[in-house]
Amino acid sequence: MSPRKIIIDTDPGQDDAVAILMALASPEDVNVLGITCVAGNVPLPLTSKNSLIICELAGATDIPVYAGCDRPMGRELVTAEHVHGETGLNGPVLPDPKMALKSGHAVDYLIETLRDEPAGTVILCALGPLTNIATALQKAPDIADRVQQIVLMGGAYFEVGNITPTAEFNIYVDPQAADIVFKSGIDIVVMPLDVTHKALVTSPRNTAFRVLNTPVGRAVADMTDFFERFDKTKYGSDGAPLHDPCVIAYLIDPELFSGRHINVEIETTSELTMGMTVADWWGVTQRPANALFIGDLDADGFFTLLTERLARL
Amino acid sequence: MSPRKIIIDTDPGQDDAVAILMALASPEDVNVLGITCVAGNVPLPLTSKNSLIICELAGATDIPVYAGCDRPMGRELVTAEHVHGETGLNGPVLPDPKMALKSGHAVDYLIETLRDEPAGTVILCALGPLTNIATALQKAPDIADRVQQIVLMGGAYFEVGNITPTAEFNIYVDPQAADIVFKSGIDIVVMPLDVTHKALVTSPRNTAFRVLNTPVGRAVADMTDFFERFDKTKYGSDGAPLHDPCVIAYLIDPELFSGRHINVEIETTSELTMGMTVADWWGVTQRPANALFIGDLDADGFFTLLTERLARL
Amino acid sequence: MSPRKIIIDTDPGQDDAVAILMALASPEDVNVLGITCVAGNVPLPLTSKNSLIICELAGATDIPVYAGCDRPMGRELVTAEHVHGETGLNGPVLPDPKMALKSGHAVDYLIETLRDEPAGTVILCALGPLTNIATALQKAPDIADRVQQIVLMGGAYFEVGNITPTAEFNIYVDPQAADIVFKSGIDIVVMPLDVTHKALVTSPRNTAFRVLNTPVGRAVADMTDFFERFDKTKYGSDGAPLHDPCVIAYLIDPELFSGRHINVEIETTSELTMGMTVADWWGVTQRPANALFIGDLDADGFFTLLTERLARL
Amino acid sequence: MSPRKIIIDTDPGQDDAVAILMALASPEDVNVLGITCVAGNVPLPLTSKNSLIICELAGATDIPVYAGCDRPMGRELVTAEHVHGETGLNGPVLPDPKMALKSGHAVDYLIETLRDEPAGTVILCALGPLTNIATALQKAPDIADRVQQIVLMGGAYFEVGNITPTAEFNIYVDPQAADIVFKSGIDIVVMPLDVTHKALVTSPRNTAFRVLNTPVGRAVADMTDFFERFDKTKYGSDGAPLHDPCVIAYLIDPELFSGRHINVEIETTSELTMGMTVADWWGVTQRPANALFIGDLDADGFFTLLTERLARL
Repeated sequence: MSPRKIIIDTDPGQDDAVAILMALASPEDVNVLGITCVAGNVPLPLTSKNSLIICELAGATDIPVYAGCDRPMGRELVTAEHVHGETGLNGPVLPDPKMALKSGHAVDYLIETLRDEPAGTVILCALGPLTNIATALQKAPDIADRVQQIVLMGGAYFEVGNITPTAEFNIYVDPQAADIVFKSGIDIVVMPLDVTHKALVTSPRNTAFRVLNTPVGRAVADMTDFFERFDKTKYGSDGAPLHDPCVIAYLIDPELFSGRHINVEIETTSELTMGMTVADWWGVTQRPANALFIGDLDADGFFTLLTERLARL
Repeated sequence: MSPRKIIIDTDPGQDDAVAILMALASPEDVNVLGITCVAGNVPLPLTSKNSLIICELAGATDIPVYAGCDRPMGRELVTAEHVHGETGLNGPVLPDPKMALKSGHAVDYLIETLRDEPAGTVILCALGPLTNIATALQKAPDIADRVQQIVLMGGAYFEVGNITPTAEFNIYVDPQAADIVFKSGIDIVVMPLDVTHKALVTSPRNTAFRVLNTPVGRAVADMTDFFERFDKTKYGSDGAPLHDPCVIAYLIDPELFSGRHINVEIETTSELTMGMTVADWWGVTQRPANALFIGDLDADGFFTLLTERLARL
Repeated sequence: MSPRKIIIDTDPGQDDAVAILMALASPEDVNVLGITCVAGNVPLPLTSKNSLIICELAGATDIPVYAGCDRPMGRELVTAEHVHGETGLNGPVLPDPKMALKSGHAVDYLIETLRDEPAGTVILCALGPLTNIATALQKAPDIADRVQQIVLMGGAYFEVGNITPTAEFNIYVDPQAADIVFKSGIDIVVMPLDVTHKALVTSPRNTAFRVLNTPVGRAVADMTDFFERFDKTKYGSDGAPLHDPCVIAYLIDPELFSGRHINVEIETTSELTMGMTVADWWGVTQRPANALFIGDLDADGFFTLLTERLARL
Repeated sequence: MSPRKIIIDTDPGQDDAVAILMALASPEDVNVLGITCVAGNVPLPLTSKNSLIICELAGATDIPVYAGCDRPMGRELVTAEHVHGETGLNGPVLPDPKMALKSGHAVDYLIETLRDEPAGTVILCALGPLTNIATALQKAPDIADRVQQIVLMGGAYFEVGNITPTAEFNIYVDPQAADIVFKSGIDIVVMPLDVTHKALVTSPRNTAFRVLNTPVGRAVADMTDFFERFDKTKYGSDGAPLHDPCVIAYLIDPELFSGRHINVEIETTSELTMGMTVADWWGVTQRPANALFIGDLDADGFFTLLTERLARL
């Protein structure tokens, strides 16, 4: 199989950064057409800058990177510096980027690329709030039929939420956008907290990154060192969860993951439960399946794959 | 005062058509930079075609006309053929247009024009659901500071609603978009049903159009003849309400209108009251004013102005 | 026709007081079985005390008066001292009551009376929040089939609201209770602000009360003097609206009123529109009629009737 | 410590039945003042009858049993015959009761008992929808200060829901009532699905009931045989979860359970998430704790205790 064409829509974020590095290190599996940035973990200027920094760290200075929406659809932006630090990439010391953002808007890049490439050949990897993708669908509904698949990190069911008692951050930030995406009819794969909380960078796994003894290995080790403090403090967990790399790992080796094809709806009306991904895991409603909701992964297999790929950079 | 630069965002609809004609007939007052079309009274292909038909009827074949969003933000499209007929312009027999739509998306035309023109010099006249304008604000939030004013037809307070017991059609179709616009901080003038239901094409006023004895006069008379049956049957009113021309008349002669600077919020969560424009006419809340909500007009002055202007075409 | 048996559920309030006086002055038309008090215009201890005061003013010291619910179903109590004054009966100087409240709860009195009297012979006159009545229906659903009719003051449609931009006070205070009542299947007559704002105590009408030159006449004149300042200041109206007496007047002479049998639903989910009575006056939904929604009255006829009746006391 | 005075509010249901039996078998720990019945698992006539059947099975024919509310506050009743069978007690063959219900309403019994007993000495054990308790609090708010504690079975957090993807049955049936209870300020202990799904009647545990070789032992074994099919089919679990007996076991030996004092709010507005118990287990909000939310139990200890107690009957 030739490599699959992907666009990474992202708000780095340390775990977004690792996901981008993993993708750029895997050209036989995924062909990164471009990166589109969105406001989320930190504001848009930082997520855009961080995307450039990571491309340069990977030596992928030819990847087109676009800035997109700087706020959600109809709500105030909420960010997560308490998790990711002020820059979104706290941890390693990385140089400012020399690459520049492409002119043009991420939403237009998404639309144009999906129209230019053969229908059904482009996968969207969504690592942040779904604002860019939903805005593209709103402006150009014809692209829904041209997307091969959306693989997204977001939501939670048994793991319930991280930013509120019932909502995961990416979906909470822009529930309206998520609602549009989940109702779009596009083939969707969801990596919720249920699975990403099982992809923990334990101390030996962090060491495995560090002993790569490369700039990438050290940066990833430093990022996960920084990033882990939030989950360790809150959950007493064994390390940082690598949420977003699950998306890329799924595209490389879906056998690492298991889940259910079920109905997933987004809470958009009640502030108490706003942004919840209501997943009908047990099939108690009659609502039709609209997503593959991942519930488990082979964590050792995942980290082996990730470490091998990072070692290439 | 030199003529004010306007973009008409519209979903014709007979009353939209009369508004466009009135604007095109008033070059000393308003300079129509372009027309952007949106789904609303009828689907987008028809509102786009109708916009072209009306430009040709007015002899304004050089006006750029753009198609925009074909559905609201996150809801199914609701249309109003029961009011406007299957084409949206039922009534007169008008030839198919020879003009073509401009390539490019209405949303981008709005953004680019607002960025190209000096800040604070362009007025948006919104005659349909606010989808195009809200999507432009979502994609390019910087334009909020560049819009001089939005004058829109939509909403209702004492007149309560036409498509549901509490909602007026334009706002009901895309409450999410309306919410974005009303929270944008842009200077907003609202023409709700409260005022437009006082702009009735009574029989003498229809005759005044018809006896112009021009293609435009006859077309307007035929359109209002068709259009009036809905309100006559429902409300027992004396003729068709010319909702959208109120927007243009306000720009030509604001003295014809009176209203209050008040807070207006949009109901976006409850299906029962979805799309209501909750207008604090009596000042019972502490919420700050965000719109000039028009409550009354000089109907005779309005129709005199309209007839004079149509006579020029 | 023998007099109709009524229970007055009330939260006096000057206009409640006038309604009670009107009922007690009309024994050939209405037989006041008892009075049940609810928290509303002022807290329950005051509405209970005020009910006793008014009974004594009318010389009706044998009427059983019961205290009921001191708060709405699941919401904090909102009161209206800004309208009615600190006691709820500000205006006249009236002696403290010598009568005592009956022991027992208003809810139980309602249930027991409806079970004791022949089915279909008791009318509930609801002048305040519907908490007592809904709680009785909740505790004893069998009484729904035994109520002849509920005639209630509450809600608004074209008159839109007084406590919020969309809600009338009585319904806003306990929307959950109103929802239960409007869904109960009981025959309901609604006196909304649409009609009660037409029952204004103009200066001549106030004088007509005063020149009765009786304790009741002077008290009613003093109450409406006090009560009118709110509406005069807010609406610039010609005097105080006698909301609640419309309920009693309807039972005495329904020909004074006109309205429509329509569907009325209560907004219970959105805080923005909470407590709105969504009245399908124009028949735009398919929802079945569940209430007679009064829209107009013969104001002169109403005040003539009221003055004549008060003159008897 | 003398036995604690409890009132059991219940909608039997096989697991309610086991809870009642456990309480009646434990006079040194709990003194069952009375049983109040509510609509829930099956309609009120059946839950009332089943309560009597269980009292007779336990030989406790002197326990006062009251019927209460036959429907939730403002919603249609939802029942669960798909879990409990048509009678609510499917499984064993048990004779019709000879005992009669007490006259009077469960709500009044709750109010009167709480007023008659010394303040702070009565615990309410709530095994069904919270309709009776909330209606009592609505009618007589003074009792809130007289309740020692409410220990209730209901809700779910990590276990998410059983009747919908986000709601547990007892809370879903009457979310309005639950909201009133959780906002009452009363000391609340919650047994959610999170813990009750760990109290599974595995085959050896069922055998332990059966080999008691008493009418009670056989009946409990037959009930759990019937009841288990639902969870076995749906979840593939090892047996029926004994939800309600957790409430009684907590009163006998709270050391069997562990949980967190946290904030719990009830979703009452959105149909999608209606009735969810939004539990701030991870402390991500600033909302104050209002309940002890149990998360785990010593299952072997629980079943040992239960079997020992049932052996006494």
